[in-house]
Amino acid sequence: MAKKKKEVPLTGITVSKEEDFSGWYTELINKAELADIRYNIKGFVVYREWATITIRKMYRKYEDLLEKKGHLPLTMPSLIPESNFKLEAAHVEGFAPEVFWVTEAGSSGKLSERLALRPTSETALYKMYAMWIRSYKDLPYKRYLSCQVWRYEGKMTRPFFRGREFHWIESHNVFATMEGAMEQVKEDMETTYQMLQDECCIPIIFFQRPEWDKFAGAVHTYAADALMGSGKVLQLPSTHLLGQNFSKPFNVNFVDTDGKEKYGYQTCYGPAQSRNYGAMIAYLGDDKGLILPFDLAPIQIIVIPILFKGKEQPVLKKANEILERLKQNYSVKIDISDESVGSKFYYWELRGVPIRIEIGPKDLEKNQLVLVKRHDGEKVIVKEADLENIVEEIAQNYTKEIKEKSLMDFESQIECVYEKDAAIEAINNGKIVCCGFCSIDHDGERCAEVVEKEIGGEVRGKRVDEEKHEFATCLICGKPASCTIYIARSY
Amino acid sequence: MAKKKKEVPLTGITVSKEEDFSGWYTELINKAELADIRYNIKGFVVYREWATITIRKMYRKYEDLLEKKGHLPLTMPSLIPESNFKLEAAHVEGFAPEVFWVTEAGSSGKLSERLALRPTSETALYKMYAMWIRSYKDLPYKRYLSCQVWRYEGKMTRPFFRGREFHWIESHNVFATMEGAMEQVKEDMETTYQMLQDECCIPIIFFQRPEWDKFAGAVHTYAADALMGSGKVLQLPSTHLLGQNFSKPFNVNFVDTDGKEKYGYQTCYGPAQSRNYGAMIAYLGDDKGLILPFDLAPIQIIVIPILFKGKEQPVLKKANEILERLKQNYSVKIDISDESVGSKFYYWELRGVPIRIEIGPKDLEKNQLVLVKRHDGEKVIVKEADLENIVEEIAQNYTKEIKEKSLMDFESQIECVYEKDAAIEAINNGKIVCCGFCSIDHDGERCAEVVEKEIGGEVRGKRVDEEKHEFATCLICGKPASCTIYIARSY
Repeated sequence: MAKKKKEVPLTGITVSKEEDFSGWYTELINKAELADIRYNIKGFVVYREWATITIRKMYRKYEDLLEKKGHLPLTMPSLIPESNFKLEAAHVEGFAPEVFWVTEAGSSGKLSERLALRPTSETALYKMYAMWIRSYKDLPYKRYLSCQVWRYEGKMTRPFFRGREFHWIESHNVFATMEGAMEQVKEDMETTYQMLQDECCIPIIFFQRPEWDKFAGAVHTYAADALMGSGKVLQLPSTHLLGQNFSKPFNVNFVDTDGKEKYGYQTCYGPAQSRNYGAMIAYLGDDKGLILPFDLAPIQIIVIPILFKGKEQPVLKKANEILERLKQNYSVKIDISDESVGSKFYYWELRGVPIRIEIGPKDLEKNQLVLVKRHDGEKVIVKEADLENIVEEIAQNYTKEIKEKSLMDFESQIECVYEKDAAIEAINNGKIVCCGFCSIDHDGERCAEVVEKEIGGEVRGKRVDEEKHEFATCLICGKPASCTIYIARSY
Repeated sequence: MAKKKKEVPLTGITVSKEEDFSGWYTELINKAELADIRYNIKGFVVYREWATITIRKMYRKYEDLLEKKGHLPLTMPSLIPESNFKLEAAHVEGFAPEVFWVTEAGSSGKLSERLALRPTSETALYKMYAMWIRSYKDLPYKRYLSCQVWRYEGKMTRPFFRGREFHWIESHNVFATMEGAMEQVKEDMETTYQMLQDECCIPIIFFQRPEWDKFAGAVHTYAADALMGSGKVLQLPSTHLLGQNFSKPFNVNFVDTDGKEKYGYQTCYGPAQSRNYGAMIAYLGDDKGLILPFDLAPIQIIVIPILFKGKEQPVLKKANEILERLKQNYSVKIDISDESVGSKFYYWELRGVPIRIEIGPKDLEKNQLVLVKRHDGEKVIVKEADLENIVEEIAQNYTKEIKEKSLMDFESQIECVYEKDAAIEAINNGKIVCCGFCSIDHDGERCAEVVEKEIGGEVRGKRVDEEKHEFATCLICGKPASCTIYIARSY
């Protein structure tokens, strides 16, 4: 039986997120003017103003965090010669189906070598690392790029989730030892928690991906899955232990303290992606529209004067005073357009502005203001003199409050199962399944195929942070379990 | 007769800027590790850490300034369908010889339509503007992109000056009237002065480019030329009055207050380019290396403890104290590497760190520090208690001092001439020539060809800010002069 359709205001989003996530997301993207899919190349999307500003804020936070941890920025060309691209065999095999090729230029026609639009930068960068890194004194060598990549994806485009061109940050690091590299992987996971959970309020779990699902060319891949509700996960940043798989073909070596030349141990990590933004707005949003962490909102406070004929002037004057008082410390705007007050409320709620300040003639008489918090709708009546203090208090707590709510039912999404039928039922009920498994090495790949076919989810891998559960046998083949894995449907 | 070769220290730059600008610039780029031209695609250059950080600082200043003036950021795909690209005839004619084409993708092979790597974004963006702009209420419509562009240039690559991929900001604006558009052009020129002269200390002149040298598709082009010394100019940002040349083929129209549908009047402007960085380091640098405006230096203060055997600890302790005291307000670093003190001085001078703080055992005894300003070499002995005040004072004045020096001999580079021979002599003496000219419309193109062939410079156009001189006749054809123009050699 269909659930009863919720009443949603016509001026806001007309589809309920709970009932139809896809329809809701599409309407959110369109009505809040976050992206435009009408650009006339398939899979290429325009990110509009509101999204561009928040994504930029996210990236700057990432850049600051990476630089605090000793990474430095570089700027690399976007094109990679086919000859570089082919140096690491597993890498080229993994990425070749997704590469856009530049083959012609200007009036001179065909180029002598095809140039790849980078799908990722290893094969561009490591040629340079080979020239730049000389001795153990240069290590650890920690760099990053803020750039875009292109992938000729077959799957359906969904703005910010998946497209054929997307922006990201990729960090590429070289160490003298495998242990050093593994420490970096741990640091990367910590960075991911800091950014995604603390700043973006998205609950994540880190998984060591199974052998058959790792980054092309990596020894191991550790990827964050966001729990998006209703049992579906979305892959977010991943960090890859490359070992010497690239340093050997690309000749990334160094003279060690003992005077001997050795190959470096490498890692790479894609902390920031447009997809993080997609995950954030999808996870936090509600039927009124966006909910944004305070720091990431393009406008943090909207002042709405409530004007009655003949009484406009004193209210407008006060509203502008409020604007002036707050604009030193916050991104604040006043809405004096011709729209009705109700439309203005919807408009800024849709865009997730954290604080709305209303001021009308009656408030003016009482020297008060009405503050409304977007994320929980709470209304606060504030004495004018207390404005700065109350706004600061709200600003301090706003993101924390969103985060607490969003992490609350984190573990309740997971169900431990001991039989295949229970797994099927759990997946159908929108849960993430936790169970015993024979192996995430190549040996386990056949069982993983069964999981996909019969249970209808994917093996996401072995949880990195902890293994709470002990299982004696593999859910599929019944052989002794070597690990606990998680199964989920994914975006 | 060759000038006497200046003595330059072996650890610094070995070529004198005055004697061999090209050699000096190349050595600066290599020794300060600003760029690497060894990337294995012709014309594509890697920007290294030190350059990337300063360029990012420049771009953020530009972005802030543009947003203060009402522009909002957007993110556009990098690829443009050939069909879009062909919509404006003059534009495609101008840019076609410089386009890189994507023709293949993945394993599916040939694409059905060639995709241009954007050489500039008009033909991508204006398709969207046609959908986004509806009414006069949407105008003025002021947007910008921070992105990179690709141009299959024939001329020689010089890092930051010219390459086949470069980063820039491009702003694209729509107005209801031609007057509105022209006001924007004026605002753009003002923005350019604010950034290039005030922030980057580069002297510029704005010229209205002659008809034969304007942006492909523009009504008029206004371009900033930097005076690089020795009579050579470098084209920096330009702003273009597009009128309705693009709005008609791209259907960028709006419903006006009178209810009628009208085509918008457009402008576009490329304020920030990697080239601005090139111009800045080339213009300000000296034989010791980089000189950078205070705000744009990746590290603003370098603390160098001068260590003598057995006396290391108290000096190191004090140096670290200094670091802690300053790092709240400045980007500051301590150099405790194994290198000699002299090498450290050269290293940080080469990289243009504005303030060096030296502290040795004797300074410790006297409770003093030695501060050295990079741009003029001035040494200041500072009582430890006064440190913050003195540093703040230097920080406040540093960029101003560079700017005063760099703007000082601005006008002395220009020479007014009344005869062709005098023009030839002036150009050979490294001057910029100012003279009468028949016309910068198409009528003047033949005289401009004579200028190039016989005088050895290019017609840069009509100066926008003022016309100081009155000339009766054209320097070349002798017909009545319609304007005053400037002739210079260019990079």
